[in-house]
Amino acid sequence: MKLKDDLRLEDFIRNVPDFPEKGIQFKDVTPLIGNPDALGTAVKALSGIFNGADIGVVVAIEARGYLLGAPMAMELGVGLVPVRKAGKLPWHTYRVDYALEYGSETLEMHQDALKEGTRALIVDDVLATGGTMQATAKLVEQGGGSVAGMAVLIELAFLKGRDKLTDYDLHSLIVF
Amino acid sequence: MKLKDDLRLEDFIRNVPDFPEKGIQFKDVTPLIGNPDALGTAVKALSGIFNGADIGVVVAIEARGYLLGAPMAMELGVGLVPVRKAGKLPWHTYRVDYALEYGSETLEMHQDALKEGTRALIVDDVLATGGTMQATAKLVEQGGGSVAGMAVLIELAFLKGRDKLTDYDLHSLIVF
Repeated sequence: MKLKDDLRLEDFIRNVPDFPEKGIQFKDVTPLIGNPDALGTAVKALSGIFNGADIGVVVAIEARGYLLGAPMAMELGVGLVPVRKAGKLPWHTYRVDYALEYGSETLEMHQDALKEGTRALIVDDVLATGGTMQATAKLVEQGGGSVAGMAVLIELAFLKGRDKLTDYDLHSLIVF
Repeated sequence: MKLKDDLRLEDFIRNVPDFPEKGIQFKDVTPLIGNPDALGTAVKALSGIFNGADIGVVVAIEARGYLLGAPMAMELGVGLVPVRKAGKLPWHTYRVDYALEYGSETLEMHQDALKEGTRALIVDDVLATGGTMQATAKLVEQGGGSVAGMAVLIELAFLKGRDKLTDYDLHSLIVF
């Protein structure tokens, strides 16, 4: 995707070797988020994909998912529901445990976050093995909502996360 | 601050007793973030305060600060720099250790996040004792920027955080 002066969104992603663990090449989105043209382009492009999709809420995944999810909620004119790591949300929650690319994780969502039947757009920065997206979809469904779509800035296609998510309408802006 | 139908932003803040520890009454912002009118009103009101202040970047504090800071950056037409807990940012960082209302904390910011002299607007959800804001101001100054303003959704006035921040232009929308 092109920005003015022929810059591309990909140009704003920094590769960091051996983070968070040796052998993992981390895709750092902070240069993109820190550039107003790149941030605006990414938020509007991802929101635009779901403009006609009757989205009722954005469900964003802690913490980098909030950086895209919150402005996307504003663009789409809907509220935002945060999904967080275990123990961070103060009210009664639904929980899902799952395996990660490196280690394991628990995600939570407030039990009163979604009204029955709410069509949720799940947002995160990077799709890796798909475990986090899959767990979040379970939380949405447990919470009475339905998954109307999934949006990520970056898809690491070689990790085949998309194969876990064939039931969902998944879109990414940058594919590595 | 009023919303349509005479709703007020305060009405969307939930009090949660004994979180994260016994004796602490937590201000839960998720009902506000989850309501499109309340979210839009809060983001536009906080951004509007700094419209003429020549803001060069929003510096937002993990994790709830991102929920407001990211759409505020879009409103102001600037990029966003995330401040994170220790070990979360992948690149070279500046670090500040400080005392919290409950416990202690380390915050980090990427060393290349700010250009020399960048005027930063620091954003968080809640101002409690002011330690987190003060630590973030130190990170901004260490990173070569200057603090052009501070914006929080909620100020817990009885904790007197503002007294630590008299050098800064601090604004809140809701005061308890």
